[in-house]
Amino acid sequence: MGSMIKVVVDAMGGDNAPEAPIKGAVDALDEISNLSIVLAGRTDDINRELGKYTYDKERISIVHADDVIGFDEPPVMAIRKKKNSSIVTGMNLVKHGDADAFVSAGSTGAILVGGQFVVGRIKGVERSPLAPLIPTAKGPALLIDCGANVDAKASHLVQFAKMGSIYMKYVAGVKNPRVAIVNIGAEEEKGNALVKATYPLLKECTDINFIGSIEARDIPKGDADVIVCEAFVGNVILKLYEGLASTLMSKIKEGLMSTVRSKMGAVLIKPALKKTLKQFDTSEQGGAPLLGLNGLVVKAHGSSGSLEIKQAIKQCLQFGEEKINEKIKENLTIE
Amino acid sequence: MGSMIKVVVDAMGGDNAPEAPIKGAVDALDEISNLSIVLAGRTDDINRELGKYTYDKERISIVHADDVIGFDEPPVMAIRKKKNSSIVTGMNLVKHGDADAFVSAGSTGAILVGGQFVVGRIKGVERSPLAPLIPTAKGPALLIDCGANVDAKASHLVQFAKMGSIYMKYVAGVKNPRVAIVNIGAEEEKGNALVKATYPLLKECTDINFIGSIEARDIPKGDADVIVCEAFVGNVILKLYEGLASTLMSKIKEGLMSTVRSKMGAVLIKPALKKTLKQFDTSEQGGAPLLGLNGLVVKAHGSSGSLEIKQAIKQCLQFGEEKINEKIKENLTIE
Repeated sequence: MGSMIKVVVDAMGGDNAPEAPIKGAVDALDEISNLSIVLAGRTDDINRELGKYTYDKERISIVHADDVIGFDEPPVMAIRKKKNSSIVTGMNLVKHGDADAFVSAGSTGAILVGGQFVVGRIKGVERSPLAPLIPTAKGPALLIDCGANVDAKASHLVQFAKMGSIYMKYVAGVKNPRVAIVNIGAEEEKGNALVKATYPLLKECTDINFIGSIEARDIPKGDADVIVCEAFVGNVILKLYEGLASTLMSKIKEGLMSTVRSKMGAVLIKPALKKTLKQFDTSEQGGAPLLGLNGLVVKAHGSSGSLEIKQAIKQCLQFGEEKINEKIKENLTIE
Repeated sequence: MGSMIKVVVDAMGGDNAPEAPIKGAVDALDEISNLSIVLAGRTDDINRELGKYTYDKERISIVHADDVIGFDEPPVMAIRKKKNSSIVTGMNLVKHGDADAFVSAGSTGAILVGGQFVVGRIKGVERSPLAPLIPTAKGPALLIDCGANVDAKASHLVQFAKMGSIYMKYVAGVKNPRVAIVNIGAEEEKGNALVKATYPLLKECTDINFIGSIEARDIPKGDADVIVCEAFVGNVILKLYEGLASTLMSKIKEGLMSTVRSKMGAVLIKPALKKTLKQFDTSEQGGAPLLGLNGLVVKAHGSSGSLEIKQAIKQCLQFGEEKINEKIKENLTIE
């Protein structure tokens, strides 16, 4: 086991707070001996939930935060005004080196803004991308960037490629991760101005395994491990993944209920179908790291249960033990 | 029935040429009395195929074209050099007013380039978008633009919205089609520079039913009839639709074969499942019109069979009878 890793968990963030984050934290502590947890949020609520469990009291602490940032609040304003929110309070611990990582299932916008303005970027990192894992036929791939920073430059995308490659190698354990840029054709001369400017720069990078363009059609097949794009396109890909899978499933269910024969079949296939669909559920892939910050911030899905929170905490452990930020610093300063 | 409509069919285009385009043309003639067909391609090949059928010889003719443009040829070069190709020959008929429309299952790139440079744009139309129909839970929606013209301007997107709205109203028969712009959030202030510039212009249009932003997640639900975006994003949406649906399906089939119980169920659900999946197959939605040209060009899927070609020809009929281009001209010149 490595040295102790301290993770702050936003006790108030997400649809199932405070129950899910607190149970997730307790379960993670149970499994991992070199982990300590700080719960950020309303002390009364946290203590009431904690009372339901037995856990190692030495490794858990509470930092009180009165406010909660809601999903519908304008992020910049919320981060600026709600200094006593669980998000700002938790992030401040990471900023000041009092914790290694921050996990929240709260407002994506607030987490992105807080990451930039509270935690702050590593010197030399121009933008900090949100990089969720998405399911593919060959296992999860990192989609980088899906954040709120639209209208990116080529230099940003090159940094995304490097950070994403480090993450997939050391956190996801993929040897020599295949890095590709989202494009509308396989050839180098295809693409919009941004892709055309970025492609030759990626080709020159000796520290990543750049395999060229990837068309959106080939993303679900698993043709790349790190999928580089600017945030607008990343957002479209991530959300279409969610939307199309869920619409397709409800259509299939409708179809299965359409005849007596298919209804009988539906009963028989249910367990196998459920298992398959779980593999292709974007919310099952763990939290999305916000990379390139002075500390790690992980955004868990808003609908996370305790299991998802526990997984997100485990991700932080790997991130800390592998000293990902040290590797990012080394890699982004070498030209 | 209206006046005669003359459609040129690329007899050499697509994976199943010349069989599929020729059978599709013959079948369309059979069904539609005010249709006449010109088959563009190698006369010998065409005559051999035509020999298999009986049809109204008065309403079918051949224009000889020696060359064929392949799927892997660089489009601009191919259109410039292969003046005797079925695509250039067929498009020239439309350009000179000798035919109303051109249907091809050939190279998308060549069709896009040929549309611009051979057929030419309607005066006042800045760009001619490729606008395929995509399946949604509430029926097909028009995704405009999925062409090759990346890095669009706000004024282009406004024209796409207007042309798409006219198409859905008169060809697809949707009353007061809901027009939305693809965005990464529902609020007006969200988006990249292009979307932020386009949004207020769309709001000002009194001739379309602009309903605001649509997130990619909500496209498959059928929340809009005309989905406006620039071509790079449109391409990503279209191809991810194809790729994700096909990967998901092969995963589901794999899952169904995983246990004895599910195998038995699979036999029972097969007919119902097939029907559902067909509704969600992008290649089942008919050809994609290239709008804003001096005549209609319809791109059928490369893998089209005779049924898809017949459908694409029928689309042209509707387009001609409803005088869509007249409506586009009127609409895009009024400010």
